[in-house]
Amino acid sequence: MANTFGNQLTITSFGESHGPFIGVVIDGLPSNIFIDTVFIQKALDRRKPGQSNLTTQRQESDVFQIVSGVFNEYSTGSPIAILIPNKDALSKDYEALKNVYRPGHADFVYDKKYGNRDYKGGGRSSARITAGWVAAGAIASLYLKTVSNIEVKAMVSSIYNIALPKPYDQYDWNNAENNAVRCPDPDTADAMETLIERIKMEGNSVGGTIACKIKNAPIGLGEPLFNKLNAELAKAMLSINAVKGIQFGSGFDSTQLLGSQNNDNLDNHSNHDGGITAGISNGETILFELAFKPTSSISIPQTMLNTTGDTETVSIPGRHDPCVLPRAVPIVEAMAALVLADHYLLNLKYLK
Amino acid sequence: MANTFGNQLTITSFGESHGPFIGVVIDGLPSNIFIDTVFIQKALDRRKPGQSNLTTQRQESDVFQIVSGVFNEYSTGSPIAILIPNKDALSKDYEALKNVYRPGHADFVYDKKYGNRDYKGGGRSSARITAGWVAAGAIASLYLKTVSNIEVKAMVSSIYNIALPKPYDQYDWNNAENNAVRCPDPDTADAMETLIERIKMEGNSVGGTIACKIKNAPIGLGEPLFNKLNAELAKAMLSINAVKGIQFGSGFDSTQLLGSQNNDNLDNHSNHDGGITAGISNGETILFELAFKPTSSISIPQTMLNTTGDTETVSIPGRHDPCVLPRAVPIVEAMAALVLADHYLLNLKYLK
Amino acid sequence: MANTFGNQLTITSFGESHGPFIGVVIDGLPSNIFIDTVFIQKALDRRKPGQSNLTTQRQESDVFQIVSGVFNEYSTGSPIAILIPNKDALSKDYEALKNVYRPGHADFVYDKKYGNRDYKGGGRSSARITAGWVAAGAIASLYLKTVSNIEVKAMVSSIYNIALPKPYDQYDWNNAENNAVRCPDPDTADAMETLIERIKMEGNSVGGTIACKIKNAPIGLGEPLFNKLNAELAKAMLSINAVKGIQFGSGFDSTQLLGSQNNDNLDNHSNHDGGITAGISNGETILFELAFKPTSSISIPQTMLNTTGDTETVSIPGRHDPCVLPRAVPIVEAMAALVLADHYLLNLKYLK
Amino acid sequence: MANTFGNQLTITSFGESHGPFIGVVIDGLPSNIFIDTVFIQKALDRRKPGQSNLTTQRQESDVFQIVSGVFNEYSTGSPIAILIPNKDALSKDYEALKNVYRPGHADFVYDKKYGNRDYKGGGRSSARITAGWVAAGAIASLYLKTVSNIEVKAMVSSIYNIALPKPYDQYDWNNAENNAVRCPDPDTADAMETLIERIKMEGNSVGGTIACKIKNAPIGLGEPLFNKLNAELAKAMLSINAVKGIQFGSGFDSTQLLGSQNNDNLDNHSNHDGGITAGISNGETILFELAFKPTSSISIPQTMLNTTGDTETVSIPGRHDPCVLPRAVPIVEAMAALVLADHYLLNLKYLK
Repeated sequence: MANTFGNQLTITSFGESHGPFIGVVIDGLPSNIFIDTVFIQKALDRRKPGQSNLTTQRQESDVFQIVSGVFNEYSTGSPIAILIPNKDALSKDYEALKNVYRPGHADFVYDKKYGNRDYKGGGRSSARITAGWVAAGAIASLYLKTVSNIEVKAMVSSIYNIALPKPYDQYDWNNAENNAVRCPDPDTADAMETLIERIKMEGNSVGGTIACKIKNAPIGLGEPLFNKLNAELAKAMLSINAVKGIQFGSGFDSTQLLGSQNNDNLDNHSNHDGGITAGISNGETILFELAFKPTSSISIPQTMLNTTGDTETVSIPGRHDPCVLPRAVPIVEAMAALVLADHYLLNLKYLK
Repeated sequence: MANTFGNQLTITSFGESHGPFIGVVIDGLPSNIFIDTVFIQKALDRRKPGQSNLTTQRQESDVFQIVSGVFNEYSTGSPIAILIPNKDALSKDYEALKNVYRPGHADFVYDKKYGNRDYKGGGRSSARITAGWVAAGAIASLYLKTVSNIEVKAMVSSIYNIALPKPYDQYDWNNAENNAVRCPDPDTADAMETLIERIKMEGNSVGGTIACKIKNAPIGLGEPLFNKLNAELAKAMLSINAVKGIQFGSGFDSTQLLGSQNNDNLDNHSNHDGGITAGISNGETILFELAFKPTSSISIPQTMLNTTGDTETVSIPGRHDPCVLPRAVPIVEAMAALVLADHYLLNLKYLK
Repeated sequence: MANTFGNQLTITSFGESHGPFIGVVIDGLPSNIFIDTVFIQKALDRRKPGQSNLTTQRQESDVFQIVSGVFNEYSTGSPIAILIPNKDALSKDYEALKNVYRPGHADFVYDKKYGNRDYKGGGRSSARITAGWVAAGAIASLYLKTVSNIEVKAMVSSIYNIALPKPYDQYDWNNAENNAVRCPDPDTADAMETLIERIKMEGNSVGGTIACKIKNAPIGLGEPLFNKLNAELAKAMLSINAVKGIQFGSGFDSTQLLGSQNNDNLDNHSNHDGGITAGISNGETILFELAFKPTSSISIPQTMLNTTGDTETVSIPGRHDPCVLPRAVPIVEAMAALVLADHYLLNLKYLK
Repeated sequence: MANTFGNQLTITSFGESHGPFIGVVIDGLPSNIFIDTVFIQKALDRRKPGQSNLTTQRQESDVFQIVSGVFNEYSTGSPIAILIPNKDALSKDYEALKNVYRPGHADFVYDKKYGNRDYKGGGRSSARITAGWVAAGAIASLYLKTVSNIEVKAMVSSIYNIALPKPYDQYDWNNAENNAVRCPDPDTADAMETLIERIKMEGNSVGGTIACKIKNAPIGLGEPLFNKLNAELAKAMLSINAVKGIQFGSGFDSTQLLGSQNNDNLDNHSNHDGGITAGISNGETILFELAFKPTSSISIPQTMLNTTGDTETVSIPGRHDPCVLPRAVPIVEAMAALVLADHYLLNLKYLK
């Protein structure tokens, strides 16, 4: 079940970049949850391509269709299936890439693993697939809103060599939605936008970091031993193509502290643990940060392996994001919401 | 199934720090694998307490018993159950801690989640449980040795402010077993030992980083979409209590590179991706690094919440590791071997 | 994951009787399997409504669309999603049934369990959902054909009080496709057709038995302890709405034999065990038989509970099958093929 | 995870007939459930060998040890592991059977599947393994008693050609515990005992039927589509070695009724559906019946295949049950209780 994620609340993903639809099946959602389609569409709009000049110019409205599981606007307890059409696929861009393996992409490993590769738009490995995750994550958020006041929010904390000047938890994250790059500090956001535009002109790409916080999670979410909340969040986040690292709370910086400095006594809200202790939410805000590598697709010519085992120098045609982070923010939120909703459900049996 | 890990090859963990046994059930191992008990014991010996003056002085020989699944020294295809007795539990040390929540430990969250806490030695949340993982990981390694030449190796790359002077992949990792701290550079190892001894005297603790490499993984391990090899390794590693972060290949440093610099063309072995692209092993050495927070148990008095909602200042009695990293090295290797063996099995259907 | 079935090869079902599509996602199919769409359509045609005067007259061509997982006619290893449109739903027939619970149907239990019921055509509980199973089962059969010569075949062995005169394994099952009722004996089939036509005129319904045989299954399929081949087949078959019983080999009749009579010595092919011993295929033909209760929907007026807790006498309008068995034959085959393909994959690791 | 059963409440089984222990790990049990060890022992005593002259004379007290998951007599939410020692294994009885395949047993299929067979006492395929299921089932019952008034009860309804004279639901099932055969009708029980004693003297064996009823299950248990309550019960029951068939409610007899006769209108408690409609408990008593084939082990000489591919005539030594049904009653109850507890947990999210 490689294309299914979750325990009690699961999503099953399907579709390819240049097929007729990408889609998702959400199973395990309790009945009688109001399925607010305007809310879901807003989530998709934050991820969709072409939303600003910083993103790929592929034009997809990402208008979705719910084909099951909802009756008179409420969930029925049956699986919710969502279809999102692909309308602006330009497969001819990919004919030229049929016989080369784009660096950093799935091309090489898919060919070796499966021996049968859909090269059009990256096929199954395309980030376009995450539109389904975002729709599913919006439904998870609707569930969380119905049963709790858990809030999931992500934002861009750094792009390449431009980072927020202060620790990321010291900003008003709501400001992140005021600019195209989704960074809560206006000056930093401006500099990031300028950088991305320049990188785009150069035919290159950049990565960066996204921070995520989850407020109001009740104490007790997470299932030791192996379904620890942080372990599940890590798995969810590493499912996002460009993510190369994750750290919770002080993360790698905690290695520079003594035990006496790093221990949270749960009284002074030092929160070095990032809201999760021993795999269980501890009542503090859950905080983690992700490293995104630079977008693999660049138009600068690169040396690549080809299917005959030689190398050639190729410039990747097509429309690409010079920096995926602005559009990745809603993807991070979606996967986090799915994990939280799943663990909220798993935890119900303890609520007495 | 919070206490079960894996897809085709699973481990189910049970036991508590001060119970009669901790144990593990390994399910899904193919039949006819030679179960080399000497090899398993060696793995356990590398994790066991009391192995050097850097570790807790709890004395456990960790001599294990296989109670099923092996016949005439070979696996039968039936579940392999392993018991490891607890012989040196000193529960009286914990009576004093019955009503306080040790910072950084599971005490508080377990009490709130379950409403029923085994406070003796941390009960189920004790790192002692990982002895079972190490035994299971040794069996996964025996499987890998039988069917492939995949090699998993971990070592300590930094402790507190003492780090390897060169990038971690530039050392001969076999040297890591020559010293108590499990660091491949002798001078760095000496400095680390001195540091840990000093920290121990001070009743404090330190964390650090462990690096892990997996050599000779065939191209193609990992199951997109959600069972990506890196996602599964991340989940496995974040299951280890003190781990607060993970990064693959260049990880967080990849955010400081341009796409043109970071892309691996699979020809020059730049390996920024750490051997995994799009969730699938790409033929390069798999590399990742983990952040371990400082040990939560320290004897320096700390302010703690207690079960009546007040705070008190308490010095934690008992025997603890001032630094868990030397003993965590075999745990990291065990979990990595389990993930690799699992994905080797999952990948069999593609081998034609 | 209530809507997902299988271990290594899974299907996830979605859709409702009167929604835009019903569908299925098949995950875990190895790559490079030829996806013969003509073969899949033939399987769907055997299940579709309106195929003879013995079935409901709802007109659905059940022309399917594959929206992912297939590239140039071969599977890619990615999930295969299939959509089947609903074109002839007459929801107005169901407005009259909005407030009553049809006996034998899901109406009452869904309302009590979920508190939100899609009453149109039975919504999610409709047998129409099994079209997706049949499409998925056809793909499982294509896999089995590619890798083995396992053959799955089902047929009608009795309808109400008309049964095959000889034990069901003594017929040429290929003849079952020569008549609308799918019974291999022409005379019995004629009598069954006459019976069903009469029952239909009376506005009543009948049940019966379907037998299934699986030839050429290699010795060794089935995973003790709990994933025994018979246990998995039983779960698969009891997922079919009207099935109320299953027996393997001599089944309930084996209780009338002494051990010395019932034991198969694997030499004389007595096959009382129905091809499965201790949960594992033993090389004999796998044989089982299913009891189908009479169709719950009848036009004869019945006393029913209604949503206000009273009873009323209602005649069910709409188009229904007076006997579901002829159309259930391909459903039984589909679920059996899915189980066999799944266990073929699970067993690969033992093939040395 | 072939040795794990369940969704939210799982059991993982391990052990062999002649190993040091057989055992079980119960995961997912909520915390704070009183673990009544006397109750568990009583359940084991009803299954243990040597309890009457109708059973095998292997002497096992089946005194169990809980090694984790319980603190001060209450569940902690951690996995409960239970060990049951094997004390009276006579492995020498099996040396003679090392090279032959006992008819009806796992010997042949295990050898072919795994290529490595523990022939001592049947190894992993021994019915002795079910002692762990019974202990786990007793814990499931303790959970059900804590949270609901669901009651699970099984009894013997027929042995060979001796059957209860009236339909099985017309007896006071509590009487079943008053005799060694576990049949609620005293006269029938006497006849059954006499029969079994005679069959035992003859060195032969008999099978029969066990009926099971579950009272007070709330409406709504069962998870469509594929985790229907009846499908899960069927899978559970077919996991029991000798079970060759299952039927719910009227089962195979429902094929002899017209729809107008068979439909339950939920008003007159006709209960042809056996308490489960569309896979969900409907508020009526859940009823099902199981076919057990005669015990495979008989001392009458039989023709058997041997490991060199020839046949030989062998009399099986050792101690065996001439009829497994009296001891199977608590096994049926245990598996049913596990399914009910699991589905009770799965259903919690709908209880508002």
